[in-house]
Amino acid sequence: MNKTFVGVDWGTSSLRAYLADAGGKILAVHRSSAGIQQQQGAFESTLGTVLTELAAPPHVPVLMAGMIGSRQGWIEAPYVETPCDAKRLAAGLADVPNGLGRDIRIVPGLCDLSGPAPDVMRGEETQLLGLLRDFPSQYGAVVMPGTHSKWVRVQDGRILGFATYMTGEMFKVLKDHTILGRLMPAESPDDPEAFAQGVDHAGSSGHFLNHIFSARTFGLFDRLPAASLKSYLSGLVIGHEVRAAAGGASGPVAIVADQALAALYAQALQRIGCAHETAPDHIVLRGLSEIARSADLVS
Amino acid sequence: MNKTFVGVDWGTSSLRAYLADAGGKILAVHRSSAGIQQQQGAFESTLGTVLTELAAPPHVPVLMAGMIGSRQGWIEAPYVETPCDAKRLAAGLADVPNGLGRDIRIVPGLCDLSGPAPDVMRGEETQLLGLLRDFPSQYGAVVMPGTHSKWVRVQDGRILGFATYMTGEMFKVLKDHTILGRLMPAESPDDPEAFAQGVDHAGSSGHFLNHIFSARTFGLFDRLPAASLKSYLSGLVIGHEVRAAAGGASGPVAIVADQALAALYAQALQRIGCAHETAPDHIVLRGLSEIARSADLVS
Repeated sequence: MNKTFVGVDWGTSSLRAYLADAGGKILAVHRSSAGIQQQQGAFESTLGTVLTELAAPPHVPVLMAGMIGSRQGWIEAPYVETPCDAKRLAAGLADVPNGLGRDIRIVPGLCDLSGPAPDVMRGEETQLLGLLRDFPSQYGAVVMPGTHSKWVRVQDGRILGFATYMTGEMFKVLKDHTILGRLMPAESPDDPEAFAQGVDHAGSSGHFLNHIFSARTFGLFDRLPAASLKSYLSGLVIGHEVRAAAGGASGPVAIVADQALAALYAQALQRIGCAHETAPDHIVLRGLSEIARSADLVS
Repeated sequence: MNKTFVGVDWGTSSLRAYLADAGGKILAVHRSSAGIQQQQGAFESTLGTVLTELAAPPHVPVLMAGMIGSRQGWIEAPYVETPCDAKRLAAGLADVPNGLGRDIRIVPGLCDLSGPAPDVMRGEETQLLGLLRDFPSQYGAVVMPGTHSKWVRVQDGRILGFATYMTGEMFKVLKDHTILGRLMPAESPDDPEAFAQGVDHAGSSGHFLNHIFSARTFGLFDRLPAASLKSYLSGLVIGHEVRAAAGGASGPVAIVADQALAALYAQALQRIGCAHETAPDHIVLRGLSEIARSADLVS
């Protein structure tokens, strides 16, 4: 049995790889911007280079998570359905035939088919298992903010179900491609007060499609300086998300994000009176090691 | 007193001008794509050409409505506040100093300052007065769909208040600039069934930011053909708007839009069980003549 493995978090725009032991202790690490969008199919040679840089011994297996298992990735790892734990994900690992002489597997994505529309995640499931390994019953819900925020219901170390909110992408297109961005100067430093005002406005009567227009009229009527409108819009969109998604969580909400984004979500959750904690780093590697052990790739 | 006047509906991307009598009877008409965006300040010479084409006698006054009165237009006509009728708008007309030897005025836009955020319209107020002139008490609300849909509360020929929904612009940016458009083929013919499915899904539990992701997952899970996703997304966005805005109207909703868009809104309102009627054409000219008479420009 292998005592070490290589864990890879291979997303759309970046790659992180670790040589680690079964407990998730890091022996070597590699980061690059070689996301799957930049690969044009050269996944095997990219991974070969990464393994060389990590000085991974020849027999060590590789476990990958993220968009590398999507239709646009190396091979498609079919979705596993919620509710789900590490054992179910381990049972759904996809084998990757390869010329590197390695045992290479990809963690499947998750789908939630319990709602009126299917929902999917790919990569986040591995982070979730890493978080739940160490804190199986501490959180009532997990938010994983980003281009597509995931709100995850968890219980006793298991992923019960989840919903995607297109918050990050929404903010970006409203800012870059609608009339709302036209009043925003290129230099718009973060403005926590305007952000809070947006979170508050999201709680007023009216629909999202109507509320967003206020990012124009507050500017037109000089109720906010032009340089504050970007933060206001950010607070408004995130405010809508957290108000809709955080209600009913049975315990504090764990925030899984980089520092800057986690701070924004903490502020928004604080503003609506919702208990929250920021999750520790490196949970993706903990998740990979949890799945690797469940699949007997490492021990 | 003048028996005729020139009414101009001068928007961002188009211009319509009429030579008409005090009752709004059309004597000559001119249409072009000379919207204010294309003018680079040459408003006076463009209007001069239009007046020549209409063969407007020298003494005839000109009344204009639309974005020509915005900060980006000829001169800014300050907003008049709701509630509002033809008399209030007539009292707020902006004089346009000009070298054409004409009495030229611009109808002010409307603002509604009664809600948690200001709201504004410019051009629609004139259409509304045209509609209310002939049907002062027939409608409980008016929807003016478009890039920025206006939902207007009306009573006894007056405009009580209104709210803007960024529906048209939202649909366009979701389709053209987010992941949702990537599954949609260039050839996506109108699909009324998928549109209805979108209107229905808008009524399911969950937030707009979450619902829109279904336009991806219904495609991923083959629950809708790729060519139907565009109509589905259109129904979803319009469905959100009409469900949020049409509730509580005290009578049928009047739809003010071109034929294709009016048909979509009629379908969505039908689907949610809301009485509606499509407004007649040329209401902008009726509104201009109503305001022109109130201002004693014509009789």
